[in-house]
Amino acid sequence: MTANRQIVLADLPKGKLEPTHFRQAEGTVGSPGEGEVLLKVLYVSLDAANRAWMQGATYRSALQAGDVMAGGALAEVVESKADNLTAGDLVFADTGWQEYAVLPAKRLAKLPRIEPLTNLLSVYGVAGLTAYFGLLECGQPKAGETVVVSAAAGSVGLFVGQIARLKGCRVVGIAGGAAKCQMLKDEFGFDAAVDYKGGNLFKDLKAAAPKGIDVYFDNTGGEILEACLFQMNVHGRIACCGAVSQYDSAAPFGPRGVPGLIVTKRLLLRGFIVSDFAEMNDRAMADLQTWTASGQIKVQEDVLQGLESLPGALIGLLAGENVGKRMVKVA
Amino acid sequence: MTANRQIVLADLPKGKLEPTHFRQAEGTVGSPGEGEVLLKVLYVSLDAANRAWMQGATYRSALQAGDVMAGGALAEVVESKADNLTAGDLVFADTGWQEYAVLPAKRLAKLPRIEPLTNLLSVYGVAGLTAYFGLLECGQPKAGETVVVSAAAGSVGLFVGQIARLKGCRVVGIAGGAAKCQMLKDEFGFDAAVDYKGGNLFKDLKAAAPKGIDVYFDNTGGEILEACLFQMNVHGRIACCGAVSQYDSAAPFGPRGVPGLIVTKRLLLRGFIVSDFAEMNDRAMADLQTWTASGQIKVQEDVLQGLESLPGALIGLLAGENVGKRMVKVA
Repeated sequence: MTANRQIVLADLPKGKLEPTHFRQAEGTVGSPGEGEVLLKVLYVSLDAANRAWMQGATYRSALQAGDVMAGGALAEVVESKADNLTAGDLVFADTGWQEYAVLPAKRLAKLPRIEPLTNLLSVYGVAGLTAYFGLLECGQPKAGETVVVSAAAGSVGLFVGQIARLKGCRVVGIAGGAAKCQMLKDEFGFDAAVDYKGGNLFKDLKAAAPKGIDVYFDNTGGEILEACLFQMNVHGRIACCGAVSQYDSAAPFGPRGVPGLIVTKRLLLRGFIVSDFAEMNDRAMADLQTWTASGQIKVQEDVLQGLESLPGALIGLLAGENVGKRMVKVA
Repeated sequence: MTANRQIVLADLPKGKLEPTHFRQAEGTVGSPGEGEVLLKVLYVSLDAANRAWMQGATYRSALQAGDVMAGGALAEVVESKADNLTAGDLVFADTGWQEYAVLPAKRLAKLPRIEPLTNLLSVYGVAGLTAYFGLLECGQPKAGETVVVSAAAGSVGLFVGQIARLKGCRVVGIAGGAAKCQMLKDEFGFDAAVDYKGGNLFKDLKAAAPKGIDVYFDNTGGEILEACLFQMNVHGRIACCGAVSQYDSAAPFGPRGVPGLIVTKRLLLRGFIVSDFAEMNDRAMADLQTWTASGQIKVQEDVLQGLESLPGALIGLLAGENVGKRMVKVA
């Protein structure tokens, strides 16, 4: 029997997430029962939402101390006792942070074998689809409008900016640090970028979006959301995708201007997760493949190596150290 | 030349609005120029938004110290130099707190002469239309869902609750004080009522809406909005109509859970003002007349007498002393 290396969430963080909240463990490789599959984990996706799951129930149940750390992954079917999958098939599944997982096959869908495989976690995965649906369905941008996106150098933000650009919008990215901001403009076609660590968020944002903000794609919440609220145009739209500024903190911050500015500017705020739009996946995938093939969107990935690097990879992601889609190659 | 008694906003309030922020004055009755009308003010409408106008620019420019206090009113045309109005016509106009006003006629529309005239400021005025559009267009309630409305005994809230009820929803009103809560249930058909001054807002709301909240019509913002956010169901809708808890205060409060709960519950928040739906006014008026005639909605009005009572009427409204639509009869 092969060993199954795992990373366990040893303690629930009260404030900042630290390496000591995790420990390595060794389990066994299970056998699939009727309707189940045994999966081999290839790449684990790192997402800010991983941290939110430690705070309580979200769109999934809360994590508990002692659980194998949860996380989505690209995985390959090793053995199947289900009709819809066979050995060798690729799936995206919440395998958790381990080398092997046994899961019910019912809610798993076979993925196309697109090379490089990592694209199945970036542009053709949750990141690309989240950007696509959040911007186009929740944000409803029109050509000539100003679109602002926070965590702009992150996995979702880079796609949001590039898709907004190809829809004819003026695109402003908010990111941490001058280097990331320069990169957004030089390499990803953003019209302007604002360094939220620069100490003049409000003023810099005003300079970058002089006509006000029509669509704000919010990955952060907190002070950045507040600054954008005050600069939204009448009938502006806010796609509420995440609140990364709030996950790694004991005392979440409620932005001033809620609901006063929502009323006076008649804003629309819409929260979403990618599966809300599952019935539109085919159209989204077709568009994303067209835009990637033509070079209209560039795919930026940040691939780390080895199961043991997962805790540091998540902690670093929460601190904003990655550019593009972060994942860890497990096998 | 007749005198024109006025109430002037003598000072802009920094915190709580007080009678000393106003003073009485006497102006002259103007003469209409080309395209203008001279209006005689009949009833001035009192609205929480009056206080918001003192905080800065909203959907109208901010009030300044020394201005005649702004306010909407039912008024009668005395003299017209415009094609679209003649003497004797009724209009709703931002005349301000005075006996006479000269205004451009271009944006004024003749109202039907419905008796009692006060209904033109309540069910057939901004209050009724705001309830109608906010609930039905922003809230999109479905039969069997739970609808919660704050400031439920106020001008808009009473209509929201009654319209939600006739659409087959479970209706919960939030109001200040046991007497108002009893009245909501006994006289206006609310299924349950929560006294936000009772000290157990969160728990009482949970008991009143045991299946969670599908639609929240927010007139208050602040702690009530926060409590509702935490109890919204997935894919719930919040109609952002006002923020009366925030107007009369120097330090507005941002609700926790924004944007985290908006994301995880995939909520839709939509701010609006009644004029956003102007093109649907005819349908709304027809529905409101049908429901009023059939007794499906009861019209509650709170009419005070005399121009000089206006400052106290507004201060009292902000403290929640009125039930139903508050107005002051000026002539």
